[in-house]
Amino acid sequence: MSDTTTEAPANTELDAVMAAAVKAAPVLAATTPRERATWLRAIADALDADAGTLVPLAMRESHLLEQRLTGELVRTTFQLRLFAEQLERGAYLEATIDHADPTWGMGPRPDLRRVLRPIGPAAVFAASNFPFAFSVAGGDTAAALAAGCPVVVKAHSAHIELSHAVARHVEEALRASGAPEGAFALVEGRQTGRDLVLHPDLTVATFTGSLYGGRALFDLAASRPTPIPFYGELGSVNPVFVTAAAASERADAIATGFASSMTLGVGQFCTKPGVLLVPNGAGLEPLVAAAVRETSGGPMLAASISDGFFAGLGTLAERDDVELLTGDPSRADVPTPTVYVTDAAALLAHPHELLEEHFGPAALLVRYDSAEQAVAVAGALEGQLTATVQGADDDADAAALVTVLADKAGRVLFNGWPTGVSVTYAQQHGGPYPATTAPHFTSVGTASIGRFLRPVAYQDVPDAALPPALQDANPWHLPRTVDGALVPAN
Amino acid sequence: MSDTTTEAPANTELDAVMAAAVKAAPVLAATTPRERATWLRAIADALDADAGTLVPLAMRESHLLEQRLTGELVRTTFQLRLFAEQLERGAYLEATIDHADPTWGMGPRPDLRRVLRPIGPAAVFAASNFPFAFSVAGGDTAAALAAGCPVVVKAHSAHIELSHAVARHVEEALRASGAPEGAFALVEGRQTGRDLVLHPDLTVATFTGSLYGGRALFDLAASRPTPIPFYGELGSVNPVFVTAAAASERADAIATGFASSMTLGVGQFCTKPGVLLVPNGAGLEPLVAAAVRETSGGPMLAASISDGFFAGLGTLAERDDVELLTGDPSRADVPTPTVYVTDAAALLAHPHELLEEHFGPAALLVRYDSAEQAVAVAGALEGQLTATVQGADDDADAAALVTVLADKAGRVLFNGWPTGVSVTYAQQHGGPYPATTAPHFTSVGTASIGRFLRPVAYQDVPDAALPPALQDANPWHLPRTVDGALVPAN
Repeated sequence: MSDTTTEAPANTELDAVMAAAVKAAPVLAATTPRERATWLRAIADALDADAGTLVPLAMRESHLLEQRLTGELVRTTFQLRLFAEQLERGAYLEATIDHADPTWGMGPRPDLRRVLRPIGPAAVFAASNFPFAFSVAGGDTAAALAAGCPVVVKAHSAHIELSHAVARHVEEALRASGAPEGAFALVEGRQTGRDLVLHPDLTVATFTGSLYGGRALFDLAASRPTPIPFYGELGSVNPVFVTAAAASERADAIATGFASSMTLGVGQFCTKPGVLLVPNGAGLEPLVAAAVRETSGGPMLAASISDGFFAGLGTLAERDDVELLTGDPSRADVPTPTVYVTDAAALLAHPHELLEEHFGPAALLVRYDSAEQAVAVAGALEGQLTATVQGADDDADAAALVTVLADKAGRVLFNGWPTGVSVTYAQQHGGPYPATTAPHFTSVGTASIGRFLRPVAYQDVPDAALPPALQDANPWHLPRTVDGALVPAN
Repeated sequence: MSDTTTEAPANTELDAVMAAAVKAAPVLAATTPRERATWLRAIADALDADAGTLVPLAMRESHLLEQRLTGELVRTTFQLRLFAEQLERGAYLEATIDHADPTWGMGPRPDLRRVLRPIGPAAVFAASNFPFAFSVAGGDTAAALAAGCPVVVKAHSAHIELSHAVARHVEEALRASGAPEGAFALVEGRQTGRDLVLHPDLTVATFTGSLYGGRALFDLAASRPTPIPFYGELGSVNPVFVTAAAASERADAIATGFASSMTLGVGQFCTKPGVLLVPNGAGLEPLVAAAVRETSGGPMLAASISDGFFAGLGTLAERDDVELLTGDPSRADVPTPTVYVTDAAALLAHPHELLEEHFGPAALLVRYDSAEQAVAVAGALEGQLTATVQGADDDADAAALVTVLADKAGRVLFNGWPTGVSVTYAQQHGGPYPATTAPHFTSVGTASIGRFLRPVAYQDVPDAALPPALQDANPWHLPRTVDGALVPAN
């Protein structure tokens, strides 16, 4: 039964939005994946067609550059279309059929058939730093609609006009392509966001943002009379380990690659490399300093984000165990890309303080004394979205780091840079806390649809009452697991 | 970095257990699925070989019958061997390979490869009602070891001697088959259980038990500085809906089937049918009453469980909107199978009170007036482990109920009874809260291994540094998803 003791204060506007979502949920659940694929493509087409309006609007609100935002819109509509393809493939349903078996080892087995079904009304908290790709029509919305869940997006205040413009396109595209009323809504305001997480009819929430804000919402979700899954992507310093072999082979390229990744988008990426570990004495410090001085900052997404960035840098600057390598931590309209330097012993002594995320163009360079010490630092890390190894061919130090870092991060890179998260089938954008609150899941890539699905098994249900995905004739032509073995699509 | 502010009080014995688990974790993570399959089979063999000692010990502690416990041990060792087979098949790793693609629609795609890896040290809280199958060497332990996670089992006090006996077999079998020290440990005591959930080195916990106890542990897990996934299976009334067509076709068989399922194992199953919805005027009440009177109770698992059962029945008995159909709610050494009766309007008016779980041989029969009212009751249910429809051929009422109930339960049965949960590939033992705290997952069946795994993507990592599951040559002969398409095992 629905909760009678919810702690959410009265919010009649939100109640109306949620009532529409509840009404839409079974209608969405009864649509076919192919129907929903047409919705996603209609949204993508509408956004692409209006790029000339949307990109300038995003530029004005986010202070990001035209090229970056144009690319982000391409990413966003590509993502919608890739998810549409994934719906047509159908493997995401994980259809599994066990035929009845009187000889089953623990006793006769009934006919059991499992498929993933939409979990219900979903809340999506938009991020500040991707006005398109992690916002109103971003990955979470695409994944939830793909799964068949009604979506209520909490707009980010840093790009509210853009949010409304995108929402209008989403609503019109959904209506025009036959989606039910209530499949999508936009809400705004901090208190409404809290009310949304506590709303008794909500079944799942996703969030991309700060550790502080995300943890507060996670705690609310866990405090509900009926707790719900909360997929929060919260924070990561994305360490980069440079092995001795790599440092001696290509120190210049590493320095410029790092400077470029660290300052991309004014350092406002969740995968920004915030810590660079280099062999002591390999001479990387001056190269990094020079490369970072070649870059430039830019206005940040919002005044509150700029405030947080300078406050964090100020705390770092006051420490005895760090020194300024390059840049300037002083408050300014446009931040200067800034790197501090310390050593691994200090990092191991004060990990919490030194590994705090600085959202913006800042990083910490850390000198380590030996390959063993580098592995010790890797082993002491908190959960990360990404961890990177800059290594060489046949580099035993690099291989050892890959193994340890796979226990700490959702994605381990070799000789690359963590910014730029490709939307693919194998992508994993997640990781142990505090990278995320749900380490089993990803918020980027086709696997992200799974966050909005829930398995249901049907026991001895007649074929006509089964969902099409589980019917004997396999009318959707799905790949399925039958009696334990994968059977390709028919 | 590890938490420095854990709230757990000092527990040096537990600290030693967890230190061993932490040391074992990377050793386990580096073993092959085939190695771990030999461990699971060694445990199964050891338990089967000692059935002559273990079953009588379980009988003495649990008061359950020999036939039931012998069958449960068969289930337990079958489960271990089925999971061993699953390790050899390897599909559970969900190996996914995206080759680099310079033409990828959103911009050049790097080489990305994802696989599931063990999440780390796991806590398993044993259940009272399955001394073998959901206890020390039960499904959760089998799944965690299969995944490659060290396991710390919190013994249930209702069968503590059996727990130690089984633990000795597990430890010896693991040692003899080459598992590392620290792969398994048994702890006991309520406070130690709380300390375990709060231990900073724990990465996941599973629990089967009461709503009250499970919610308390869930809240602890969510309160940690580093929250961890908590897979609690808490409660379910497992409603059974009898359609008008079914009632007119086979009322006798339904009455006896219900009585048998409701009283199996003295009603102490999480899937016991606790609510039977019947068409008003179909004459099922006297048949159900007669069938239930033909059954008998038996001593319950523990005095505390018996106390809880009679207290709950007492609360129900005091209500004005229910009547006793058969049985006796009076406190006794051996409970009498007891059924109360009410109508759907009362149920819809007081759902929380009338749908409380009574763990033991008791149920509520609910008369409904129309197919629409039955659907309304189904739509108003909280999350359930199971929901059952007793229907007929070409029964539109039954088909409508199946659709609604799929939104409420982890498993929907047709013309069966929910007790007896087969361990298979398609099984789903889970459901929305309060059935479980994690609706995406199952605690029975081969898919339960996934609770102990976490995805990691490798970007542009050289073949030699990749896990075997992701290497080009596919040395483990796994089915894999390659560039979005399933490729069968080589």
